[in-house]
This record gives sequence, C-alpha cells and structure tokens, in this order.
Amino acid sequence: MGRPSTPLLSVERIAEAALALVDSAGEFTVAGVAASLGVRPSSLYNHLAGKAQIVEAMRSAVFREVPTIASSPGADWETSIRRALRAYRDAFARHPRLIPMLTAQTVSARDVMRIYDDLARVLSAAGLEEGRLLDVITVLDSFVIGSALDLVAPDAVWDADQAEAPELVRAIRSAASGRDRADRAFELGIDLLLGGLGGLGPGAAAR
Amino acid sequence: MGRPSTPLLSVERIAEAALALVDSAGEFTVAGVAASLGVRPSSLYNHLAGKAQIVEAMRSAVFREVPTIASSPGADWETSIRRALRAYRDAFARHPRLIPMLTAQTVSARDVMRIYDDLARVLSAAGLEEGRLLDVITVLDSFVIGSALDLVAPDAVWDADQAEAPELVRAIRSAASGRDRADRAFELGIDLLLGGLGGLGPGAAAR
Repeated sequence: MGRPSTPLLSVERIAEAALALVDSAGEFTVAGVAASLGVRPSSLYNHLAGKAQIVEAMRSAVFREVPTIASSPGADWETSIRRALRAYRDAFARHPRLIPMLTAQTVSARDVMRIYDDLARVLSAAGLEEGRLLDVITVLDSFVIGSALDLVAPDAVWDADQAEAPELVRAIRSAASGRDRADRAFELGIDLLLGGLGGLGPGAAAR
Repeated sequence: MGRPSTPLLSVERIAEAALALVDSAGEFTVAGVAASLGVRPSSLYNHLAGKAQIVEAMRSAVFREVPTIASSPGADWETSIRRALRAYRDAFARHPRLIPMLTAQTVSARDVMRIYDDLARVLSAAGLEEGRLLDVITVLDSFVIGSALDLVAPDAVWDADQAEAPELVRAIRSAASGRDRADRAFELGIDLLLGGLGGLGPGAAAR
C-alpha cells in the first residue's frame, strides 16, 4: 500500500496554513495556501468554497482558545465575561494582521457564534434591556479588538521626545512597560464599560 | 527647458502612494511604492529613511483629518474630546488595513503627538489624576481603533441563522444597519468610558 500522493487536508490544516501566511505577510491567497500545503488549489475546494470560507475557518481557529462564558444563574456574570474577554484579547493579539480581515466579514462560524450566544444570555440574565444588547456586545467587541492591537504595540507606544504637554511627557516616562502597561489599560477599560452597564438595566444595576 | 525626468517627490506623495497600496493589498514595500510613483527606490530615500518612516508618514496623513481638541479652560472638555474621537474613528475607518501597522510602531510623528498632547492637557485640566492619564488615553485609543474596524464591518455583523440564543437572534434581526448600527455602539461606548472617568479624579467627577 503506497502513501497518499498528497498530505491529508482538513479545514483545520487549511486555516492554519492561511493563518501562517497572514501572520507573516499580512495577506493570503488561495493559491498561496495551496502552495504552502503542497497541494493544488482545486484540492482546497473540496474542503472550503473560497477565500471567505477560509477567513471564517481562521476565525474559528482563533476563537477556539476563548473559554465558554458560564451562563448558569448562580455564576458571577462579570467575572465570567472578564475571563472570556481576556482570552479573546490574547487570542487576537497573536494574529494582529488577521483582525481587519475578520471585522470585514459577517461572523457565521457556528463555534464562534456560541461565544456571542453566551454573552447575550449572560447580559440578558444580568438585566440588560434587549434593545441595548447588540450595542453592548459591539462595544465590548470593539474594545477587545483595539486592546489586542495595543497588547502587541511596542514597549514605547509614544515617543516622549516628541510630546510637548509636560503631563504627557511625565506619564510616558513613568509608564509601565510590556504586558503590564497594556493590562492596566485593558482592565481599566473593562471596569469602565462593565461598571457603566448598571444604567442600562435593573438587574445589571443590582449586581 | 525640459520637464524633469521624474515627478517631484515629497513625503506627502510617498505616504499617499504607500497608503493606496496598503488599502488595496494590505501591505507595501519600498520597491512597490517607488514603482507606483514611477521612480527608483533610491529616490525615496532622499525623503524618508525606510519602511518605518513611511508608516509614520502614513500615520500623519491619516491624523491630518482629526481636529484639534480645544484645551481652553472654558471649553466643554467632553464635547471637545468626543468630536476628536469621532473624527479619529472616521479617519481610521478609511484605512482599516493600515491599523495593525500603525499600532505595531511607536508614535513619533510630531503632528500626531499634538493630538495626544491636547488629550493629556484636557483630561488633566478636567481633574484626571496623572497616574491614570496614559491608561485612559490607551483605553480611548483602543476603543476608537476597534470602533473604526466596526464602522467598516458588513451590514450583517453576525449571521442570525447561526445564532442560538433567542435574545441574540432577535437583537441581530432588529438591529439598525450601516452607519447607524455602528454609531449607536460607538456613542454608547464613549458614554460609558467618559461617564466612568468621574471616579478617577475630583475635577472629572464635578463635570
């Protein structure tokens, strides 16, 4: 029995190869993904219909690292949401160039939608009014995505030598560095956003 | 008198050419920028020392559309900051693929730093404690950047057919579309973030 002439393909392997191209070059093509897997483009089409489906498979691959948000009545919803948002930020920070591709496309991967399902359930159970649900999810999404990019910013986000306001110069010079700097801002942002939700629903206010 | 054999180069023209490449292809090279301007790469180096300086010139070009934040004592700081953040979001939304390149590099362009100088002055004057200044600026920055990507998301950000939580399905189906959808979330996020600053300084609390 001979070995198969082409390696076994799967949606996961294709997503992984595309992700490697995006991470290194900022972009991918179906032909490029096929070449990096040593197969013909036509072989990919047995698994995924085209570029949009490959983007969606990359979204699934990245979100696989985000834990489920506990939606049981007894769970502390804020702790549960924070844990998921932190993991979401970390997962996206590993693939910054992928971010604009993901945000440019409708979220349809079922295993990614489960995160939003959970978020909707937990926020609703906490008392958030339904008319504000999508706005709040969008706000959290936008903040996490921007924070993922901030997490991979250089240690010196701003060049203090180019700043003029004395308070800004001092703030830049005394800032924490690396992950500490980014984490402080991220946790503050989540505090401000979740803290403000109290005004949007009776249950949220009672937390 | 003959015409010059190469068109007149400037930092602005180089930034514009690089921006066009990033918008269309997600990436740029010095050679690609030179080719699109019909000059040799060596000609570019008379104006900009390399790729990092071209990125910084693109940052200046994009921020040129952001209005000055009034820092006079009589001005309403919140209105002034909101106006600048809205313009910042709009400017970045026109160049989504540029965003990960900008966040990966230290901000050093003097004309961009003036925005952060103003923001620092206005927030300090409003009573924000200096130890929190950079955290707050980072939070606003991250939210605006994520919101810029949300602004150019497709009308259907989530595919309702893939959602399971009934509250999420209803929320997706009844969501506003296009700019209205994104604007609602952006304004809510700014409300939550600026509203929460009251806890971070006495003057901010008194607004």
